[in-house]
Amino acid sequence: MIIGTCLILLNVNISVAQQEFDRKNIENAMVKAVEWQEQHPIFGSEPTDWTNGAYYTGVARAHKATDNMVFIAALKTMGYRNEWKTPSRYYHADDMAISYPYLYIHNNQLRKDLVNLEPTSTFINKHLFEDSDWKQGKGDKEFKTILWWWCDALFMAPPVIVEYSNLKNDRKYLDAMHKYYKQTYHLLYDKQEHLFSRDTRFLLRAKETDLKEENGKKIFWSRGNGWVLGGLALILESMPKDYKHRDFYVTLFKEMSFRVKELQGEDGLWCTSLLSPESYKHGEVSGSGFFTFALAWGINNGILEKDQFENTVLKAWKGLVTAQDSSGKVGWVQDVGYDPKPASKDSWQNFGTGAFILAGSEILKLRLP
Amino acid sequence: MIIGTCLILLNVNISVAQQEFDRKNIENAMVKAVEWQEQHPIFGSEPTDWTNGAYYTGVARAHKATDNMVFIAALKTMGYRNEWKTPSRYYHADDMAISYPYLYIHNNQLRKDLVNLEPTSTFINKHLFEDSDWKQGKGDKEFKTILWWWCDALFMAPPVIVEYSNLKNDRKYLDAMHKYYKQTYHLLYDKQEHLFSRDTRFLLRAKETDLKEENGKKIFWSRGNGWVLGGLALILESMPKDYKHRDFYVTLFKEMSFRVKELQGEDGLWCTSLLSPESYKHGEVSGSGFFTFALAWGINNGILEKDQFENTVLKAWKGLVTAQDSSGKVGWVQDVGYDPKPASKDSWQNFGTGAFILAGSEILKLRLP
Amino acid sequence: MIIGTCLILLNVNISVAQQEFDRKNIENAMVKAVEWQEQHPIFGSEPTDWTNGAYYTGVARAHKATDNMVFIAALKTMGYRNEWKTPSRYYHADDMAISYPYLYIHNNQLRKDLVNLEPTSTFINKHLFEDSDWKQGKGDKEFKTILWWWCDALFMAPPVIVEYSNLKNDRKYLDAMHKYYKQTYHLLYDKQEHLFSRDTRFLLRAKETDLKEENGKKIFWSRGNGWVLGGLALILESMPKDYKHRDFYVTLFKEMSFRVKELQGEDGLWCTSLLSPESYKHGEVSGSGFFTFALAWGINNGILEKDQFENTVLKAWKGLVTAQDSSGKVGWVQDVGYDPKPASKDSWQNFGTGAFILAGSEILKLRLP
Repeated sequence: MIIGTCLILLNVNISVAQQEFDRKNIENAMVKAVEWQEQHPIFGSEPTDWTNGAYYTGVARAHKATDNMVFIAALKTMGYRNEWKTPSRYYHADDMAISYPYLYIHNNQLRKDLVNLEPTSTFINKHLFEDSDWKQGKGDKEFKTILWWWCDALFMAPPVIVEYSNLKNDRKYLDAMHKYYKQTYHLLYDKQEHLFSRDTRFLLRAKETDLKEENGKKIFWSRGNGWVLGGLALILESMPKDYKHRDFYVTLFKEMSFRVKELQGEDGLWCTSLLSPESYKHGEVSGSGFFTFALAWGINNGILEKDQFENTVLKAWKGLVTAQDSSGKVGWVQDVGYDPKPASKDSWQNFGTGAFILAGSEILKLRLP
Repeated sequence: MIIGTCLILLNVNISVAQQEFDRKNIENAMVKAVEWQEQHPIFGSEPTDWTNGAYYTGVARAHKATDNMVFIAALKTMGYRNEWKTPSRYYHADDMAISYPYLYIHNNQLRKDLVNLEPTSTFINKHLFEDSDWKQGKGDKEFKTILWWWCDALFMAPPVIVEYSNLKNDRKYLDAMHKYYKQTYHLLYDKQEHLFSRDTRFLLRAKETDLKEENGKKIFWSRGNGWVLGGLALILESMPKDYKHRDFYVTLFKEMSFRVKELQGEDGLWCTSLLSPESYKHGEVSGSGFFTFALAWGINNGILEKDQFENTVLKAWKGLVTAQDSSGKVGWVQDVGYDPKPASKDSWQNFGTGAFILAGSEILKLRLP
Repeated sequence: MIIGTCLILLNVNISVAQQEFDRKNIENAMVKAVEWQEQHPIFGSEPTDWTNGAYYTGVARAHKATDNMVFIAALKTMGYRNEWKTPSRYYHADDMAISYPYLYIHNNQLRKDLVNLEPTSTFINKHLFEDSDWKQGKGDKEFKTILWWWCDALFMAPPVIVEYSNLKNDRKYLDAMHKYYKQTYHLLYDKQEHLFSRDTRFLLRAKETDLKEENGKKIFWSRGNGWVLGGLALILESMPKDYKHRDFYVTLFKEMSFRVKELQGEDGLWCTSLLSPESYKHGEVSGSGFFTFALAWGINNGILEKDQFENTVLKAWKGLVTAQDSSGKVGWVQDVGYDPKPASKDSWQNFGTGAFILAGSEILKLRLP
């Protein structure tokens, strides 16, 4: 019946229009977040540190998803002001994070002399192929026994190394990365819980001094696991499909994704202590943003089943946008740290903004409901 | 009759109040545009490049017209961060553009050691008086046969040279400028159309490979001609009244002004392809801003007849302000390029903002209707 | 009676809630002022000059009072961009002012290698212990006969020196400061009026050429005295309670405070010429901000009687907030200068914003009405 057909077409058009409307809202939220963050520059030790590394990784992904000039303008200005330098601790994965946006800008601008990749190259080669105290188990603290002795490192360095390996078309970088990644995996991954301990201080050794939550559970930090899962999405996107160890990362990504999904709160967000939400009873944005990014990326790239994860990520995004105020500021971000601590409406950090826009950059690509 | 006289006086007062109100609105639009642009720094190759040269030329003129501290604050911060440097391609007119705002700051601040004019001096002297491949017709592309082989160059370098000539009180700089200006004029100016081709690729040579619009017309790029006409206003304002070649510039300014006036669109703006508005059917802000600036400057400086041009420029300004959104952002700016291409509500560039405030800086001085 | 008790408790609760509400409003006004100022960077000669020294001293005190990250983010970014340098005129008190925020950041960040105090140390030691023309009475102008020959200097250098003395735990710095402070005191302090002349040009020598206000009164500049009184609050807060000359500063602080209180205008603010408010009949924000800061600090630190000064400072704050527009901009600030001149709604300066937030930082600590 002709009238019926017309109605169906009309419905489709409304739905498409609604989709466009929703996408524009998401992009606007991302733009406002970046505009606010650019107006409130912050760092821990210096502007090239991991806090900005993580933030501008988000800006790079936001640009990739939208092509909005606000994002590339912020990236170029940042890189130029930093003179494309890295911090100087070649043994420290944190100091490699800023090279992710550098490589993005290099790969996405016609002007090939814009980015000076020399400092990035030097850093990666020294980090992977020169001796250092940590590699030799001689860190200044007893728990610094391997190169990547804390789980955050799996976001800071591996995605950069995969991108660099592609650029150089040389898998020796992938192989070196895999070696160190596996060390961290064996040290910190809990094969029952499918979550990472932040570092060996949080492993249980059946001693009285073991650190535990008040409810007796092991301490699994939301942001720490967000670093790992978000990092895995970045790694998998760039890693050649035929790389010999790729399956290891796919499996790990899936295991963690299913576990993380189970731990989502009613508000769509994750509390800072994954197995003890009662410790600080509010969603936290940095960990939640990284989880949302990773799960949505998994759907968009055919690694996670849409039917199983779509509700999770849409609910998560709904929660995330409530953390943004009308100025664009993204709150409810736990401060710099290494274990679960509370956040508040007013606590913000550049890397929290980064997690927020990373999430948005993949939510944009979903077929919205 | 006394009552009648009173009424007339009253009308005058209302009109003066209205004028002030309108002027304040124009200045506010300019301030908002600059505030937005300062919060979204952008460049092509580096912060001293021509994109910022053109933008900060607009900021300098905005300050000259209003004395508003927002403008001089932005100028000083820019100059200090750039260490008053130019880019390093001494043969390239584009790289001289940043010196226009440097010279403006120098001329308008009491503190005479604020601006370091050394890099500007070096650039100008090398550009004009040292050999280069382009001067010798040995450019890397066949159309690079003279120093200023593209019409944009006539905005980038000549106004700076005239200012510098005044500062040094030495007309050798004017003479050198005139020599190169005439070369470009002979190469690219269409004496029938009274418009400039962007470069020799757009000249017609009666060959099959000639580039033409779909309607068969010659390709005259709006922004390209905006660079020339806007540059002429800057040149004429600074050039000594008794300079021997001044008439050449006055004549050219008038010829182009009358032609440009004819090509204005219904919305007050100019399309990116001047003789083929049907190619991209929307006003474009960078070309339109430069035209508006130049025509209003012509009225304000007694070179163009007010009766003949006032409606054009007021209609143009009305069009330009519709391109600014509530955040202050000026959209509808064609991206970096060299021939007519479309723009959109969301396409912005620092030089587009520069064109917008250049226009405002002269509209402010009109006796408004 | 039980019901009565309940009502009293209820009233107390309402009052506490109101207090919190008012405090949040004050903090918000301070945050908006700093956000606006950060978006409109300005300086006189360079970003490390006294204008930013005074502004970021305000930002430091705002952070101390609120712990709001917006303030510490601005401070760290400023210090990093300035490479923790001072300007280079070691003989000039103005060029020491930027070290107040440097020392604050150093004292308030866990990361002790963040701030490089080397340039500050060099400056202070040269300033105090090396010869200079001013110390020897050989300034380029006849009135430059002592190190701190103008009263503004008493804000620019002494608070920094006291902080540095504490850091080094060495009172030789305090003693040197006291020596030069007393020179200025003897030269410029009017023991009848309890106010400072800006410099010797404004002293009366019973000559025809003496500078006076139109009403015949001596010229006492609001901001000049604001520098002194605000500086005294900073000095007294940091100076050891047992320092041998402390009483001198307490006495001077009290004398000036009582005099300043008498000169407050109806709108809560002070005019630029303290004894000739009819010269420019409007409150001016930089002087008023420094006065408000100092008087509120005096109450909060038990040096001034609350009963005698609370109305003054609350009225002053009420006046100050009317100078802030909805964008956050603080207007009614007299431009850079050295004697009373008018301001306007649109006249702003970074040090005016600094005075505004300094005032807020102490108003916050009052028990509000």
